[in-house]
Amino acid sequence: MATISLGRYMWERIRQVGVETIFGVPGDFNLQFLDSIFEVDGLKWIGNQNELNAAYAADGYARIKGVPGVFVTTHGVGELSALNGVAGAMSEHVKLIHVVGQTTRLMQDKHMMIHHSIGREPNHQQYNNASKGLRYAAAELWDIKTAPQEIDRVIRECFIQSGPVYIFMPLDLSAEQVSTDLLKTPIDFSPKVDTVAQGKAVEAILAALSSSKNPSVFIDALAHRFNAVSESRELVKKLHIPFYSSNMGKGVVDETEEMYVGNWNGPISSPGVDEAAQQSDLVITFGYLPADTNSGGFARKLESDKSVIVNPFNVVVKGTIYPDTSLKPLLSALIKSLPSHPQQKVSKPILPPPRTPLDIAATNITQSYLWPRISEFLTPGDILLADTGTTVFGLCDIPFPENVRFTTQIYYGSIGWATPATLGVDVARKEISNEGRTILITGDGSLALTIQEIGTMIKQKSSAIIFVINNEGYTVERMIWGAQQPYNDIVPTTYSHLLPLYQHPTPSTSYHLATTKVELDSLLSSPALLNPPNLQLVEIVVPKLDTSWRLAGQLAYRGEAAKEYLNNEGFVNTYGDWGLGAVEGGEGKTGVKWT
Amino acid sequence: MATISLGRYMWERIRQVGVETIFGVPGDFNLQFLDSIFEVDGLKWIGNQNELNAAYAADGYARIKGVPGVFVTTHGVGELSALNGVAGAMSEHVKLIHVVGQTTRLMQDKHMMIHHSIGREPNHQQYNNASKGLRYAAAELWDIKTAPQEIDRVIRECFIQSGPVYIFMPLDLSAEQVSTDLLKTPIDFSPKVDTVAQGKAVEAILAALSSSKNPSVFIDALAHRFNAVSESRELVKKLHIPFYSSNMGKGVVDETEEMYVGNWNGPISSPGVDEAAQQSDLVITFGYLPADTNSGGFARKLESDKSVIVNPFNVVVKGTIYPDTSLKPLLSALIKSLPSHPQQKVSKPILPPPRTPLDIAATNITQSYLWPRISEFLTPGDILLADTGTTVFGLCDIPFPENVRFTTQIYYGSIGWATPATLGVDVARKEISNEGRTILITGDGSLALTIQEIGTMIKQKSSAIIFVINNEGYTVERMIWGAQQPYNDIVPTTYSHLLPLYQHPTPSTSYHLATTKVELDSLLSSPALLNPPNLQLVEIVVPKLDTSWRLAGQLAYRGEAAKEYLNNEGFVNTYGDWGLGAVEGGEGKTGVKWT
Repeated sequence: MATISLGRYMWERIRQVGVETIFGVPGDFNLQFLDSIFEVDGLKWIGNQNELNAAYAADGYARIKGVPGVFVTTHGVGELSALNGVAGAMSEHVKLIHVVGQTTRLMQDKHMMIHHSIGREPNHQQYNNASKGLRYAAAELWDIKTAPQEIDRVIRECFIQSGPVYIFMPLDLSAEQVSTDLLKTPIDFSPKVDTVAQGKAVEAILAALSSSKNPSVFIDALAHRFNAVSESRELVKKLHIPFYSSNMGKGVVDETEEMYVGNWNGPISSPGVDEAAQQSDLVITFGYLPADTNSGGFARKLESDKSVIVNPFNVVVKGTIYPDTSLKPLLSALIKSLPSHPQQKVSKPILPPPRTPLDIAATNITQSYLWPRISEFLTPGDILLADTGTTVFGLCDIPFPENVRFTTQIYYGSIGWATPATLGVDVARKEISNEGRTILITGDGSLALTIQEIGTMIKQKSSAIIFVINNEGYTVERMIWGAQQPYNDIVPTTYSHLLPLYQHPTPSTSYHLATTKVELDSLLSSPALLNPPNLQLVEIVVPKLDTSWRLAGQLAYRGEAAKEYLNNEGFVNTYGDWGLGAVEGGEGKTGVKWT
Repeated sequence: MATISLGRYMWERIRQVGVETIFGVPGDFNLQFLDSIFEVDGLKWIGNQNELNAAYAADGYARIKGVPGVFVTTHGVGELSALNGVAGAMSEHVKLIHVVGQTTRLMQDKHMMIHHSIGREPNHQQYNNASKGLRYAAAELWDIKTAPQEIDRVIRECFIQSGPVYIFMPLDLSAEQVSTDLLKTPIDFSPKVDTVAQGKAVEAILAALSSSKNPSVFIDALAHRFNAVSESRELVKKLHIPFYSSNMGKGVVDETEEMYVGNWNGPISSPGVDEAAQQSDLVITFGYLPADTNSGGFARKLESDKSVIVNPFNVVVKGTIYPDTSLKPLLSALIKSLPSHPQQKVSKPILPPPRTPLDIAATNITQSYLWPRISEFLTPGDILLADTGTTVFGLCDIPFPENVRFTTQIYYGSIGWATPATLGVDVARKEISNEGRTILITGDGSLALTIQEIGTMIKQKSSAIIFVINNEGYTVERMIWGAQQPYNDIVPTTYSHLLPLYQHPTPSTSYHLATTKVELDSLLSSPALLNPPNLQLVEIVVPKLDTSWRLAGQLAYRGEAAKEYLNNEGFVNTYGDWGLGAVEGGEGKTGVKWT
């Protein structure tokens, strides 16, 4: 019987489900089985600068590749450093496999005081316990007889639940042998389908559609996470009714589609969008994720009697739950059940023309200029990442060309996520087709947390474009509290030294600075950015108290006090209405008290 | 009745117990009560580049200041990012207070989908759950009536247990008012003393001493952590018997004391030290912490019938446990009970002269040259930090002048810890007296994880000296497995760009490079390093496979295979015996299997 080590088995299984890159940081308790990565055909290793960055990179990889992002750490020190990245994947339903190299079983049995432990008779499972609530499944490997099926089980769960799972691999166990025959049966990671339950849900959706005069579709994040992008696109085409997106659902279906209206966050939307959405007597939502940051601060309401909500594991039709469905196959079945021609003739709402920002005449770079200019810069195939802050709200506002993938962490909102995620996204993009560009827009505040991962990108010869918005600190926090307080300042940084620090091959021609609109314009038309030969770093200087109307609107919507604060502290009021133009005297409608 | 906010109350209490600096990262759920820091007399704020770094900085601060290191994060994203730093404080018994700004009580009650949460009906306590096993106490604040006493309780526990505690502060609660009268009663954080139990333990120790002909003392880490440094020093003087230290106990009692013999790790010790220690018929240990990395890989044995072990909460005399004692008062009582003149006349063992390393003639910088040269560089009052890797083992080997404090994380061993810890140490050093220098020696591998905290040091006008050992990656891992494997390589870094990246005022004269012994020698005698005007960065180039004999010895002690590996891969064998000169044919004695 041909055998391989359990470590090798794990990597072969991970390769079989479509993974081509493993991220991570070496440590005493994973080195031996890292060797096996190099034995697996088509699998490669990328070492990260720290473990949190490794988790973020794997998260970015998974979002683009549609298969798990996989990363390895050593137990304890490495495992815990990455935990925030894992929790983020849980919150945002990103497929992640965290492989933890543990102490040997003997060391664990004897409660030995091996380094990275706690106390005089340490429980080496202490760290495993910490992540119990922050994962969908864990293979706690101990016995070679059951280990292969445990590995298979959690890989399957990673797909089915679309979220993080763990594999705990005691160092000695990784070297034990299993039969290669086990590799012959592929892991079935397709969603379970209960055809009867699914049929009932589809029927109910069709009935709701039939009785509607003005239906619309609302695209949200989980349609992407549960790998139903192509189904969402096909459905929107076939239904041929107006459709909207959330912040997190932006770009899942191309905005160049004929019936796309806009990004809908209730009254915190571009003029006309909310009014148009309110006309609808039925909103069919794909992959709902109604977090504050994904709903204009709970400003968008979906009325139950006008709603169909397709959730990952059920469908809610006008308040009635149809359980035991699965998002992707459900949408697929719905496509098949629809007549080949649209049932309704619903015309697309006509929106008012775009507003003119009050600061249009500024020669320096303002946010009201920046985001639309980025829109022009995008081309089909690009992947756009944004970190949490003013940036992500600004970008939610701009039109995308077709096939632009928007990669953000809007619900979990862990600043620093986007830089290492860019590494993972760029690796995945190149594995798929090398089409388009990988573009990160981050703030100076967010970049600081994980800045060293730019070194890994340079080492990996990434050609990502990194825009850093230099606005002297945490502007999003200044807008909430302490506009001028020192705790919202950051460490002053001269970004021109970042590329040479990490031995970029052409540091002076690949770093760019823009302080005026003219400079930015010229930069965004330069060959280095249109077709980047290697990693490009673009520093964009923006006023400290400038912001996007969409973020200001979400905050001002909290109530009169918030609006007064923004006024008094001197924040830029892009259109003079704090983004509440569409709100009829109704700030603070959500009733959420913040203090 | 005069009142203050609960946030202010917390900071006032923290200030009362001796804390002068709060570290952290601002976030939506802590901004409001960060303001109160600035209202407390003598309390200041230092913002870190990320949350893990904040935890590490607070850890470093606590180790030098002897009071809790305090840091603030927002819940979820910030809280989890710091968890590894908190676990490290638990493992190493460092006083740490982690203040977590949480969502409002209403948001928690309603399970609202506020950003940083997980799921559709999020439990906002999910992250608090994750750290339950990694702290000694937590104030889960909910009710203004009990909140002040809960805060007091965990501050007290932080001292008593010497380890991490949490304060969970819902944002809205922080603004509620409490009476200023509560500040009038100081928090009693002195250890509990059961005088009867303590008396019995002291008697037993005295009896053991009386019946011993050749007693000795062994100083370990927990004597430092439980604030018994001055008691340890006094005891060693009064006993006037030979004493030894562990790796983690090094420098707790001055090595310039007459009766100091050496660093004892069983056979993995300098020649003569183990033989001398074995002559002793009674070893009195203060603050025992027998982890693998603190015992030559379990090579040092303390025989029960020849041992007195003073633990934090009990004393073990020749196998008999005397419970309910407290380390610091126990040592204090012991001092008082000893006769004013030593009971025994024990002569100090004479060690053989130092060995000559085989690579003594090298002109490039070797580890056999480097560590003794660092010894000469040290002056009284210096604080020396070392990160995990070859460095810390090399430094365990060198003599220290008086009053050199050695700050390491040898049990928990989380690489990257030392750089942010240096920030905290330097802040604490200056708060105490500004005597001496803060000196970090780290590896290129360790530095990468937390490199951005050097920016915070520059912003804070730190005058720390940072030596980075550039040996092309994780040499300590190469020694264990995969000497030439790519996973042990790191991202190539040009350190001369690090200071200007973070706007150091004199980047070119404060960065130094040494590749030869002559260069290093001249550098270490330069005014910039003898009396640093601002932060100094010294890059020291050392061969990739060079190491300290002490680390090689601990690994070679695992057995013949480990020794063969080191040989075959070409690691430097400093004295030709893999550090096992003192081991009689007996590698692998510990019976610990690593694979």
